[in-house]
Amino acid sequence: MAYPFTFELKHVCQQSGARCGVLHTPHGEIETPIFMPVGTQATVKAMTPRDLIDVGANIILGNTYHLYLRPGHKLVEEAGGLHKFMRWDRPILTDSGGFQVFSLAKINDIQEDGVLFRSHIDGSKHFFTPESVMEIEQSLGADIAMCFDECAPYPSDRKYTIEAMERTHRWAERCKSAHTREDQALFGIVQGGMFEDLRIQSAKTLADMDFPGYGIGGLSVGEPKHVMYEMLETMMPYMPERKPRYLMGVGSPDCLLEGVLRGVDMFDCVLQTRAGRNGMALTRHGRMTLKNAKYEHDFSPLEEDCDCYCCRNFSRAYLRHLFKEKEILGAQLLTMHNLRFSLRLMEDVRRAISEDRFGDFARELLEQGIYD
Amino acid sequence: MAYPFTFELKHVCQQSGARCGVLHTPHGEIETPIFMPVGTQATVKAMTPRDLIDVGANIILGNTYHLYLRPGHKLVEEAGGLHKFMRWDRPILTDSGGFQVFSLAKINDIQEDGVLFRSHIDGSKHFFTPESVMEIEQSLGADIAMCFDECAPYPSDRKYTIEAMERTHRWAERCKSAHTREDQALFGIVQGGMFEDLRIQSAKTLADMDFPGYGIGGLSVGEPKHVMYEMLETMMPYMPERKPRYLMGVGSPDCLLEGVLRGVDMFDCVLQTRAGRNGMALTRHGRMTLKNAKYEHDFSPLEEDCDCYCCRNFSRAYLRHLFKEKEILGAQLLTMHNLRFSLRLMEDVRRAISEDRFGDFARELLEQGIYD
Repeated sequence: MAYPFTFELKHVCQQSGARCGVLHTPHGEIETPIFMPVGTQATVKAMTPRDLIDVGANIILGNTYHLYLRPGHKLVEEAGGLHKFMRWDRPILTDSGGFQVFSLAKINDIQEDGVLFRSHIDGSKHFFTPESVMEIEQSLGADIAMCFDECAPYPSDRKYTIEAMERTHRWAERCKSAHTREDQALFGIVQGGMFEDLRIQSAKTLADMDFPGYGIGGLSVGEPKHVMYEMLETMMPYMPERKPRYLMGVGSPDCLLEGVLRGVDMFDCVLQTRAGRNGMALTRHGRMTLKNAKYEHDFSPLEEDCDCYCCRNFSRAYLRHLFKEKEILGAQLLTMHNLRFSLRLMEDVRRAISEDRFGDFARELLEQGIYD
Repeated sequence: MAYPFTFELKHVCQQSGARCGVLHTPHGEIETPIFMPVGTQATVKAMTPRDLIDVGANIILGNTYHLYLRPGHKLVEEAGGLHKFMRWDRPILTDSGGFQVFSLAKINDIQEDGVLFRSHIDGSKHFFTPESVMEIEQSLGADIAMCFDECAPYPSDRKYTIEAMERTHRWAERCKSAHTREDQALFGIVQGGMFEDLRIQSAKTLADMDFPGYGIGGLSVGEPKHVMYEMLETMMPYMPERKPRYLMGVGSPDCLLEGVLRGVDMFDCVLQTRAGRNGMALTRHGRMTLKNAKYEHDFSPLEEDCDCYCCRNFSRAYLRHLFKEKEILGAQLLTMHNLRFSLRLMEDVRRAISEDRFGDFARELLEQGIYD
């Protein structure tokens, strides 16, 4: 199969420098900037694939660490890959498990060859290497795979951050050598902690390796938001302009806008789905806690001008009732809304960029201070 | 508003005596025999209204006891009634809370006037009378309301069963007097425990009250199935032929067939939705426990010839994965399937009746012994 992955940079906003483009993948085109709902365990929680299409999801994320542990990448491969297993015919991106190994699992040993860790589920021992992770991601068969990286904890000192970054670079080379699937793009991941010069060094080193796209890892790990924004600003001039830039694990509404302002093309975040299951709505008027007593007799829709199934049909009073009663339907409806809210925001973002008014667009929303 | 509730008896199967008909309600027509999914707390668990339409649900049930406690019938009334509150535009039937008061709540006192009970949620004290239940059901505004009855526990002695039955008859008279909504049909409920002569007496007494339809209460409360079938056979000649007959709280596949064979027109049951949430599938090959290890590598659909969204898209291996991981999507998909399975069975039942071959149809399925 010919390599079908290309990134077309369509337009750079004259007002803001933000960019829009199109990613071509084996499972279709993705307009960027894009938000990717997270489907950790081969399901975006509480959503059927048809619900996802209904809210306008175009690419979703799968978590390699979770899928490796359960049901196992070999089973997914036997099913014909992740697309067939979970019946999602649009693009998928899998992370490398790097972040999860360093945040969820219990690390036993970080070696040059790889990482020895214990499963957060049953304590069983596992060893991830760049080569084994490539094998797993190729079995899963997403359209985009990520290199296995080491995500240093926050805060980390300069010495350790350099060690982790340099290991990440060596692992990126090994991932590139081990990766053979021609219908899957492999992205490198920029690290470097909260050190500007290291971020630049990492961006340059990875740019030289000529990946078809780049993840920005190790941000939104506990640092203040302004530090994350500064890091993005620092490294962005050294990220290849003609390659997609993916800010990993970041996607609250304010971060989406701030990220796009700084040249980011792709985002993913569990906030939308997790908040949805917990009765928290993202809206253009800020966050709403649906269980709040003030919604008991509120028969207006969650968000007046939202076009999602939830807002077109149900009242705040009904949603409150569902969450008070712990009814599954509450999680379903609010997840739909939160995803639609974020995907619609990105539709508006792309329109504003293409019309050279994204600077105003973002400023107006951010100044309201309701998207934090 | 003119009274829009009528029951048309369309055909009696020459082979079996089973009947099919059409119920006309303010929210549309219902072909009988029908299975009604249960929407206890203003939601059929894990189903959106559009999912329910997709599986072919035509009438659903709401539980008066639960809705009275939470969110409260006054809130539902304020929302414009149960249809509007939960966004279900097709017919609804509400039970009277009688069964729940006697099974879920802690009874403090059964008086001639009504029942004093404590909520199963917070232990708060409440008093249900025929008049208060009519007020609640009229606030909810279903197309069909049920009389407040006393469901005697199983087993009960003859003396107590007579007391409860006679009280149920007096309460039925009071419900009829208190019920004023012209766009809502009020059904009487036949009781009489497991005593054939009392069942006949109850059927006759209620027939004389000329309700537009009749519930058959107090069955499937712990007695052997053959006793339930005998009770149905005994009382059915005394149930008005031109009125719908609703066997309350019964709906496993074998009971649907056995009930229809004995002249029942309407059924409801939580089995389909509860089993769906717990990983149990109802199929034409019997029940399946999806978590079973034998499905781990089974990439065939749940049921080869089922037309539901779950069976058209997903494999047993995927469903097993979802249930192993306690993913909400498992509950959604399997509830869809179990409802579709039962609703499709009833479609086949109606077709078989109209073609005078329901005796063969039911016998063939029941002889397989897989529907118990």
